[in-house]
Amino acid sequence: MDMLPVMAELSQKTPSKILLVVLDGVGGLPKAFGGATELAAAHTPHLDALAQRSALGLLTPVYPGLAPGSGPGHLSLFGYDPFQYLVGRGALSAIGIGADFQDGDVGVRGNFATLDKNGLIVDRRAGRPSDAENVRVVGRLEAAIREIDGVSVRFYTESEHRFVVILRGEGLGEHVTDTDPQKTGVPPLAALPKDSSDPKSQRTATVLNRLSERIREVLADEPQINGALFRGISERPRFPLMSEVYRLTPACIASYPMYKGLASLVGMEVLAVEGVEDAPEGKVKALQTHWDRYDFFYLHFKKTDSTGEDGNFEEKVHKIELFDHLLPELLALKPDVLAITGDHSTPSMLKAHSWHPVPLLLHAPYLRNDPAQRFTEDEAARGSLGHLRGVELMPLLLAHAGKLQKYGA
Amino acid sequence: MDMLPVMAELSQKTPSKILLVVLDGVGGLPKAFGGATELAAAHTPHLDALAQRSALGLLTPVYPGLAPGSGPGHLSLFGYDPFQYLVGRGALSAIGIGADFQDGDVGVRGNFATLDKNGLIVDRRAGRPSDAENVRVVGRLEAAIREIDGVSVRFYTESEHRFVVILRGEGLGEHVTDTDPQKTGVPPLAALPKDSSDPKSQRTATVLNRLSERIREVLADEPQINGALFRGISERPRFPLMSEVYRLTPACIASYPMYKGLASLVGMEVLAVEGVEDAPEGKVKALQTHWDRYDFFYLHFKKTDSTGEDGNFEEKVHKIELFDHLLPELLALKPDVLAITGDHSTPSMLKAHSWHPVPLLLHAPYLRNDPAQRFTEDEAARGSLGHLRGVELMPLLLAHAGKLQKYGA
Repeated sequence: MDMLPVMAELSQKTPSKILLVVLDGVGGLPKAFGGATELAAAHTPHLDALAQRSALGLLTPVYPGLAPGSGPGHLSLFGYDPFQYLVGRGALSAIGIGADFQDGDVGVRGNFATLDKNGLIVDRRAGRPSDAENVRVVGRLEAAIREIDGVSVRFYTESEHRFVVILRGEGLGEHVTDTDPQKTGVPPLAALPKDSSDPKSQRTATVLNRLSERIREVLADEPQINGALFRGISERPRFPLMSEVYRLTPACIASYPMYKGLASLVGMEVLAVEGVEDAPEGKVKALQTHWDRYDFFYLHFKKTDSTGEDGNFEEKVHKIELFDHLLPELLALKPDVLAITGDHSTPSMLKAHSWHPVPLLLHAPYLRNDPAQRFTEDEAARGSLGHLRGVELMPLLLAHAGKLQKYGA
Repeated sequence: MDMLPVMAELSQKTPSKILLVVLDGVGGLPKAFGGATELAAAHTPHLDALAQRSALGLLTPVYPGLAPGSGPGHLSLFGYDPFQYLVGRGALSAIGIGADFQDGDVGVRGNFATLDKNGLIVDRRAGRPSDAENVRVVGRLEAAIREIDGVSVRFYTESEHRFVVILRGEGLGEHVTDTDPQKTGVPPLAALPKDSSDPKSQRTATVLNRLSERIREVLADEPQINGALFRGISERPRFPLMSEVYRLTPACIASYPMYKGLASLVGMEVLAVEGVEDAPEGKVKALQTHWDRYDFFYLHFKKTDSTGEDGNFEEKVHKIELFDHLLPELLALKPDVLAITGDHSTPSMLKAHSWHPVPLLLHAPYLRNDPAQRFTEDEAARGSLGHLRGVELMPLLLAHAGKLQKYGA
């Protein structure tokens, strides 16, 4: 059930402030059954002290067993059911690379492919070229193709065989089939409107088919990267904004394009952060600078995920300790409601996003007692908040902040 | 998902008896983090002993973060998903005041308002008159307006600026817009059918617009209460009955109109209770008198909620102790399944309904082990039943009572 209409009815503006800290992929696993997870192995005096006056619980980000990508994981934390608020693959790629991607644009995920002289697909990933090769070929396309039928066409490099195309123009639609046939020995498919009576999708399909031809013409002299397959043709989604749904004035403090993009989809203002890469100090500074102007802050730290994906247990422990070091500065701002959690687990042992629930720490007024001594997965599993879904977090934060009216008389 | 059709398929009539005790608003909060809640502070020897041979758990009444009103809170406990089984505001007010409100009637929540000489709204609540003023003005309306276009019109006082109108006649409908514009400086809106091809709602709108005029004529000489705004125009809901859905012969033992009304919506027989106000002894006597004639009893105690709403921690503790004192008489009846819980929490610290889960005690055959020593929120959070939604309670009670067949072959 989509709870956003209910939230829109019950939410009220108040001066209280909510700080949602997302330690990306923070949930982990022990190296062996019975051992310490990354959180348990970390030396975290400030988190420990906070846990002792907070309530803990576990969040299943999307559904038991599902390892969510950044999109569904974050949308859930923002209270948007990811099964109802869908972001197409092209749109998510465009958001993930920080492309200029606006309302009405159509984003397309492209795969470079190798075609034979009859136009049949030999390799759907063009031999997995290097990122440098990708950049070179995308440069050739950018120089040669600027518009088709009055629709502006922009190319963005992603990695290896992956690139993104953004179409901008009047009257484009997203209900268009992929051109990737998902097999070799056949030609690329023609893009087709899913509903032939939909002129916007018809126009988009025509542009994409013309674009396929133009790419083959421009890359005709390339030995390997001489074709392209299109997937996940999608408009930038138009989601209800957090200002409408929750009556919040929300801000995002993040460094990487994907998280800034997801935050902007739900209407957060993306604040500038000083510093390079994850820039933890710059983020804390941004929070301090803008503290008075917003009543909801989404504060994202990336490296707990990247170190987990690298399979580097000790380095993930270190990134958790780095956050612990910053925690007193967050507490000094005295948020009315502070939640610390992850968008999913990224156990170093798996080197990947996983389906394991993520620990949640809630520091707020009106808490019941909780036995927690530390912020770990084990203590969270015994926490007084119990097991919740990711999408259930926002109503809880709003309630503790005094921002939700009674439901029904 | 609406589980009632599944329940209707699986439920079977058996002689076993279920007693559902609702201590209204029983869930609480400690005065400070780490302290005792009202339940923990109470001296409850009988509940303690019962808890030691029962299973505990937590119920989230409706949804995490949502503080439910009596309507959604109780419908959930009766197994009716309150997001699917909706009671309009006018119907709930009519039920809450114990009005004569039957199938086909339309209930309307009225607000007295002050209008200026041009008919523009000056005050949407007519200066929040005293209850006595409200009674006086409702008396004038009752005397002057008995019917409009063959539709009988009855007025009921509620409190301050609030009153209830019940329309009774052939061919009335509920799909009619409010006349309250939710702002001042404009005239009241005309009631309009939401679908112009619906003659029932058209007729109701016509009657309500004529009623607005008649109220202004009758109250023209009043200095402050000289108009009315209508909201939440709604028929008495027609819900599946517990006898159909669960094959139960259910009875309600409650003192206040709201709870008797909600019970009658799901088809419970409302038993007479001797005594004034909450009449706890009268309720136990009613239970004893009628024990043989029903197989499901909903036994409601109100004062744990009212003392919580008053912010009177000690008095709420006292009301819990009063219930503890009555408990042996309930146990002496030997219900096959006994559940003790609340429809929502009403922590004295909040002086209001809250979103916190409510503790559940289940004394029944076929329980697993449970470490509980007392019936408190903390022990319930560690209970063997885990965390459930309110709407999940009824299937559990029916199962322990041997009233549910296997689902699927």
